[in-house]
Amino acid sequence: MPVETINWKNGRIRYIDQTLLPGRLKFVECDNIPKLWKAIKTLAIRGAPAIGIAGALGVVLGANSCKTESRGVFLRDLRRQIKYLASSRPTAVNLFWALARMESVAESNIGKPVSAIRRLLLKEALQILEDDRNACRAMARYGASLVKAGDTILTHCNAGGLATADYGTALGVLFESKRLGKRIKVYVDETRPLLQGARLTAWELIHERIDTTLICDNMAASLMAKGKIDKIFVGADRIASNGDTANKIGTYSLAVLATHHGVPFYVVAPVSTFDLDINTGRDIPIEERGGDEVRTVMGKMIAPKNVKVYNPAFDVTPNHLIRAIITEKGILKAPYSRSLRRSAA
Amino acid sequence: MPVETINWKNGRIRYIDQTLLPGRLKFVECDNIPKLWKAIKTLAIRGAPAIGIAGALGVVLGANSCKTESRGVFLRDLRRQIKYLASSRPTAVNLFWALARMESVAESNIGKPVSAIRRLLLKEALQILEDDRNACRAMARYGASLVKAGDTILTHCNAGGLATADYGTALGVLFESKRLGKRIKVYVDETRPLLQGARLTAWELIHERIDTTLICDNMAASLMAKGKIDKIFVGADRIASNGDTANKIGTYSLAVLATHHGVPFYVVAPVSTFDLDINTGRDIPIEERGGDEVRTVMGKMIAPKNVKVYNPAFDVTPNHLIRAIITEKGILKAPYSRSLRRSAA
Repeated sequence: MPVETINWKNGRIRYIDQTLLPGRLKFVECDNIPKLWKAIKTLAIRGAPAIGIAGALGVVLGANSCKTESRGVFLRDLRRQIKYLASSRPTAVNLFWALARMESVAESNIGKPVSAIRRLLLKEALQILEDDRNACRAMARYGASLVKAGDTILTHCNAGGLATADYGTALGVLFESKRLGKRIKVYVDETRPLLQGARLTAWELIHERIDTTLICDNMAASLMAKGKIDKIFVGADRIASNGDTANKIGTYSLAVLATHHGVPFYVVAPVSTFDLDINTGRDIPIEERGGDEVRTVMGKMIAPKNVKVYNPAFDVTPNHLIRAIITEKGILKAPYSRSLRRSAA
Repeated sequence: MPVETINWKNGRIRYIDQTLLPGRLKFVECDNIPKLWKAIKTLAIRGAPAIGIAGALGVVLGANSCKTESRGVFLRDLRRQIKYLASSRPTAVNLFWALARMESVAESNIGKPVSAIRRLLLKEALQILEDDRNACRAMARYGASLVKAGDTILTHCNAGGLATADYGTALGVLFESKRLGKRIKVYVDETRPLLQGARLTAWELIHERIDTTLICDNMAASLMAKGKIDKIFVGADRIASNGDTANKIGTYSLAVLATHHGVPFYVVAPVSTFDLDINTGRDIPIEERGGDEVRTVMGKMIAPKNVKVYNPAFDVTPNHLIRAIITEKGILKAPYSRSLRRSAA
C-alpha cells in the first residue's frame, strides 16, 4: 500500500512533511491556509497531483474558516483564498485546475445556504482526491503494458506516492510492473537541487522492494551510452496542447539524451496535467527558486556564499522527444495536439 | 596570480587540501608517500596535471627516504614506491606519464651515485612542474583565440589552477580571455558528487572577478535550449589516440547536449594527457568510487542509507562530439588520430 501523502482527517488536512524524508516520516495536521501555502511553497507537499489535492482541500479549510452566512461575503472571501493558494507555485497546472473546480462548485451552488456549499466543497475536494487515486491505478496499468520483464528503467525526481493520492504516476507504472511479476531494475536520478530522487523516490522504491540504484544527475548519459537503460518514465507538471511537457529541471536533458541513444522516453500524467488553453511549452511559466537551494545541501554551504545562482525548478521537453504520454484515459501518441484534446474531452 | 596548488618546499610537498575549499584554504606539508597516496585518493590533491606533478614529487620523497647507497636496492625500492603511487587513481594518465618519466631518469642515470640520482629526480620533478606551468600559459593563449567578447561559456568540474601548477586548462582559457579584456560570462556546473564546480571552480572564477553563475548539473540543457551558452570548455583526464576523451562524470552528457544544440564543445588539455598506447576510449579504465560519495553531501546523508549506488568518477566523450582539442602545441582538429600523434611527436 502506498503511504498516505495527503488526506482530510477530522476537519483538517493531514500530510507528510516531505522535506524531512527519508530521515523522518512525520505527519503534519494543518487547519489554516497560510500554513498550507507555506507547505506547498517549501515543498513539504509537492508533486503536481498532490498540490492539486492540497489546493482543493485548502479551499475547504478556507470555506470552513469563513463564519459568515452571507453567500456574497462567503463567495468573495473564498475567491480571495483561492487566489492566495494559486500564488504558492506557478508551474504545475493541477493546482489551478483543482482550484477552478472548487470555485465552480461554489458558484454553481450559490443559491444554496452557505453550510450546504461548505459540504459540497468538501465533497468535491474528496472527489478530486478519489479521482486521482483511480487515475494513478489506470495510468499504472497502461504504463505497465509497456514494461517488459528484465527492463532497466530510469526515472527522475519523484513521481510516486508522495506526489499523488495513491501510488504515483511514473512510479505507479513501476509498482504495477512489479506487482505483475515483471522483474525490473530501476536507476534513480538524485535530482538536484532538492534531491527528490535521492530522498523520496529511492525511499519509495526500496519500500516496495524494487531493485534500485541511485545515481547523480550527470551519470545518466553514461549509462545510456553503455546500453544499460531500456526505458525512461517521468511525471509532468504541465502539458501544453501540443504535448510539450514541463517537468522537474533535468527532464529535458534526459529526453535529449534518450533520443540520442534511442531510449524510449515516456511521460506519465493524469489528464488534469493538460493545459489546453496554451499552445506550446513556451507559454508555460517556469518557476525560478532561490539561490540557496543550489548553494546549500541540507543546510550545508557547498559553494562560495557570494556566487550567483540560476535555479529554474522546471524545464520544458518538446513533444517530438516524447515517445508517448501515458494517462488514465490511455496511451497517447503524436500528433499530441489531436490525442490530448480527444482524451481530455 | 593563480594559487600555488602544489609545490616543493624545504624537502617536502606543500599542497592545498582541496576537500576543505571553499570554506577553508589550508596548505598541508607532506613528507611521506602514504600520506601523499591518501591525499590523491581522497581528492585533497586532484586534477590530472596536478596529480601528475604530485606523483613526480612523490617519487622524490621516496628517493630521499630510501637511505641506501646501493644503486640496486635504491632502484628496486623506487620502483616499488612508483607502483604504489600508481595505484592511487586509475583514470588520469598524467600520473602514469609523470611516474614513467621519473623512473626513466633513475634508470638512465643508474651508473651515478645514489645521491646524484636523487638530485636528478628532484630536478626532473621540478621540470615537470615548470613544463605544466608553461603548458597552461600556452593552452590559455590558444584557447582564448576561440573566445569572443560577450561569449557566455559553460564549464564542468574544475580545470583550473587547483588542477594544475598554474592557472589551469579550461579555466586558463577563461582567465586569459579576461586578461585580454574580453567580457565573458561563465556558467559552472556544480559537478556532483564531489562538487568541484561549486566548491573550486566558482571560487577560482570569483577570485579573478569573472561574472560567474552556478547551476546544478541537470540545468545545462535548459540553458542551451534557450541559446544562452555560446561555448563549452572542459579539461581531460586521458585522451586516447583517436581523440576519445575521459573527463569528470557528466562531461559526455554535456557533449551530447552541446551537439544537439549546436554549441561548440572544446577540450583543453596538455599533451601529457594523451595516451597514444590505446586506440579508443573503450580502453580507458574508469574509476568507480564508493557509494557514500553519492549518498552523502559534506557528511550529510541525503538518501536511504541502504540504497545501492553507481558512482563512476569519469565518462568518455567520443571524438566526433569534440570540436577541437586545445593543447600547448596548438589547436588540434579531427581527424584526431593524425593531429594528436603529430603534436605529441
